[in-house]
Amino acid sequence: MTATSDTHQTTYERLCQHVRETTLLTSARQLLEWDERVNLPPAGAPFRADQVEYLAGLVHQRQTAPQIGEWLAQLADSPLAEDPYSDTGTVIHRLKRDYDKRTKLSQRLVEELARMGVLGQQSWATSRKANDFAQFRPVLEQILTLKREEAAAFGYEESAYDALLDEFEPGEKTANVARVLGALREQLVPLVQQIAASPRRPNAQLLKRSFPVDRQAEFARRAAAAIGFDFQAGRIDLSQHPFCAEPGPFDARLTTRYFEHFFPSGLFSVLHEAGHGIYEQGLNKEFYGLPLGQSASLGIHESQSRLWENHVGRSRAFWEHFYPQAQEEFAALEEVSLEDFYFAINDVQPSLIRTEADEVTYNLHVMIRFELEQVLIADELAVADLPEAWNDKYREYLGIEPPSDADGVLQDVHWGACLFGYFPTYTLGNLYASQFMARAEQDLGDLDSMFRRGEFGPLREWFRERVHRQGRRYSATELVERVTGRPLSPDALMEHLRTKFGPLYGLG
Amino acid sequence: MTATSDTHQTTYERLCQHVRETTLLTSARQLLEWDERVNLPPAGAPFRADQVEYLAGLVHQRQTAPQIGEWLAQLADSPLAEDPYSDTGTVIHRLKRDYDKRTKLSQRLVEELARMGVLGQQSWATSRKANDFAQFRPVLEQILTLKREEAAAFGYEESAYDALLDEFEPGEKTANVARVLGALREQLVPLVQQIAASPRRPNAQLLKRSFPVDRQAEFARRAAAAIGFDFQAGRIDLSQHPFCAEPGPFDARLTTRYFEHFFPSGLFSVLHEAGHGIYEQGLNKEFYGLPLGQSASLGIHESQSRLWENHVGRSRAFWEHFYPQAQEEFAALEEVSLEDFYFAINDVQPSLIRTEADEVTYNLHVMIRFELEQVLIADELAVADLPEAWNDKYREYLGIEPPSDADGVLQDVHWGACLFGYFPTYTLGNLYASQFMARAEQDLGDLDSMFRRGEFGPLREWFRERVHRQGRRYSATELVERVTGRPLSPDALMEHLRTKFGPLYGLG
Repeated sequence: MTATSDTHQTTYERLCQHVRETTLLTSARQLLEWDERVNLPPAGAPFRADQVEYLAGLVHQRQTAPQIGEWLAQLADSPLAEDPYSDTGTVIHRLKRDYDKRTKLSQRLVEELARMGVLGQQSWATSRKANDFAQFRPVLEQILTLKREEAAAFGYEESAYDALLDEFEPGEKTANVARVLGALREQLVPLVQQIAASPRRPNAQLLKRSFPVDRQAEFARRAAAAIGFDFQAGRIDLSQHPFCAEPGPFDARLTTRYFEHFFPSGLFSVLHEAGHGIYEQGLNKEFYGLPLGQSASLGIHESQSRLWENHVGRSRAFWEHFYPQAQEEFAALEEVSLEDFYFAINDVQPSLIRTEADEVTYNLHVMIRFELEQVLIADELAVADLPEAWNDKYREYLGIEPPSDADGVLQDVHWGACLFGYFPTYTLGNLYASQFMARAEQDLGDLDSMFRRGEFGPLREWFRERVHRQGRRYSATELVERVTGRPLSPDALMEHLRTKFGPLYGLG
Repeated sequence: MTATSDTHQTTYERLCQHVRETTLLTSARQLLEWDERVNLPPAGAPFRADQVEYLAGLVHQRQTAPQIGEWLAQLADSPLAEDPYSDTGTVIHRLKRDYDKRTKLSQRLVEELARMGVLGQQSWATSRKANDFAQFRPVLEQILTLKREEAAAFGYEESAYDALLDEFEPGEKTANVARVLGALREQLVPLVQQIAASPRRPNAQLLKRSFPVDRQAEFARRAAAAIGFDFQAGRIDLSQHPFCAEPGPFDARLTTRYFEHFFPSGLFSVLHEAGHGIYEQGLNKEFYGLPLGQSASLGIHESQSRLWENHVGRSRAFWEHFYPQAQEEFAALEEVSLEDFYFAINDVQPSLIRTEADEVTYNLHVMIRFELEQVLIADELAVADLPEAWNDKYREYLGIEPPSDADGVLQDVHWGACLFGYFPTYTLGNLYASQFMARAEQDLGDLDSMFRRGEFGPLREWFRERVHRQGRRYSATELVERVTGRPLSPDALMEHLRTKFGPLYGLG
């Protein structure tokens, strides 16, 4: 080893050590935020906002320390950075990207956004409970001002929305997402119409009988363990909105909520969040906090949750394995055939609530939000006019009108949590999931016969090697192309939906 | 206002602002530690130790920032510091004390202690589960080395133990505690013997019938709310060992555990921890993190928990109010008379487990630990010989021998959590509680008749004004003298025990 490479190695290690230490703070902040949504007594919210704001400021100081810039400059032309897909190259290039982005934001803005993230969620929760958008309106206006400021600080070529989207789906552009979603919509709307015109309907009522909540929790826990969620390094809690957090490398936390008289909600939320958790648990823990141990993008994250929820959890094969257990657990299912149950959990209906939507109409909910947040950020829609715009879109896309803002524009926590540019990653996740699954089927053979035997390990390991263990080595776009051999397109998702729902609804 | 006092005021405000910001980190650490004991998946422990160690280091840096020393020096002779019992005087003098102590510790030692606090608890939990002291032994040896180092760094006049005790009971000395505990023991042992010789025995079996856990939880919650624990600013969770944490000014968190076949454990733990919580909730939130908004000492803290648990919760009057509700809730009590129930929850028996001990023998458990930890710290007892020494003391003081280390020397979390000098505060708490209660009865009139009506507000407010709202204005010793008009002595506790247990056991 030459003296020069020795120096580079030392610099590289110092850089990594600095980032690892920062992660001790970001993970503490994650716990504060997880706790806020799961445990925090109501009166504790303002102080929690102070804590999160302060930690965000400390983290920002560490992330923008000039020393990082110097280390990165020293490493830029070193052999360690030469191959951008090598371990060291990945770390250096991704950290450079992060550093360049973080240094564009002022500490004041970072702290304000962190604070608003806590207070905005509280305001949203209160307004939703009271079904009173007017309460939330000034807060959302403040949030939008901050988000526009953030986008301007990051800078962008085409639209401010690009800058926000890039935080969740690095390198992705609004125009490209709009193109893909547009192409999807063209094929999706006719399918929704065909299904609506079909005389076949499942008996959805059978999922609305009594399903005791403690038994649901036990059953969901068993299902999560079966697909590979590791409870030695994770847990399940209750919260208003299901989510997954990871306040440490061996600490993946799912949440869900159970309704006694609506079975699918709790279980499929658990399978969904367990998909996120399995991704987190599959990351390379040796590099926790470093780009090699981080998820590639939110869209890739969502692909992992949606595939376990839908491609696996709502498949007939999955239930051929689990249905006898479900019948033992729930008296309400005793007389229900597997076929009727399977059809009921795949009921396609225009509906109000995104998180409860079926696989087919789900993406229409996402498109509505994607379009609305673009015009909000561009200041082409006033917040005061948002509820009406929301309801118009629901009429146009889904043919229904929300009876209240609580079940309309106030249904999602995201905007209150300062998350703009996040929604489209849900549909990107669906698209990625379908492409991945088509390829996995090619590689592994008949997946359904595995699921029927309760074998989920081969599929999980397939993802572990190709997706989880890659961390941020590739962008989402690169990763999808590398793993599936094809660029992103709506084809695999449409193929999946037609193959699955065609026979159910007797489509030609 | 003169120019000088203006400057002092500004300095004072800067000092307070610095401390308030530090509190954002100490409270975050508290949440990490609370979460470790309530939620953390097993595999998450090593990283949690990293997080806590790192935060402890950051906090130490802030607590020992030379700027604090300069501010304090500027304020030392200012009018703001003149009266040590004024608001500003309290803040300045207490912060000076804290600063002088903190600056004696190296950052390395603080970080190691924080780290060992997490890892030691994990090791203790594993060893206890396996009933294998040998596993815990090397960890305890490491901890003792660190604690001796800590005591040496703080410095002391008489014994290293003084330095550790001072962390929990500021200003208190080992010799004084030994004197008071010795005097207590002299009166306590004959009482224990008299009771043992009494032919009267309660039917303790009636508390070992089936008490469904969810009903216990509901009942305990109702009782905690009745004595004044505010659930808008607090919550109850489950953990192996009941405790109370406060990761924010409006966020007091109790834990307990329920056993279906042993009723008293869950409820009295809740009343005990709710006493801690009510103290925290009664502190002046305007000064959260500053000496005016902090508890006076652990002994004073414990006085608040023990009085609600024992003087209130195990009184006949309390149950004259609550027993009809308990009978409605628990079929096991339907045929049990109030008198039999009251006698059963006040069963005096030499027993193995401190936390389950009755009011009379409880303090003997504490004395054993107080004596053992003094010789451990003084290096006069080898850790290898600790289990035998423990068992010897239990034979000598309580006439029983632990059948296993799990129920013997491994029963308490404290030593694994690096807490030495903590145990005697339990008995100090009992002594303070009795003195306070005797005085409260003088001031408020017949407390029993209030409890009988379910009125706990007057007692709570009496403490709020005299104890809670005083923060750290007075030392524990000063506070007890000011509130009760008498110096600390065993008299009030012995009077309480004789008055309560004499009639139950038919003593002369």
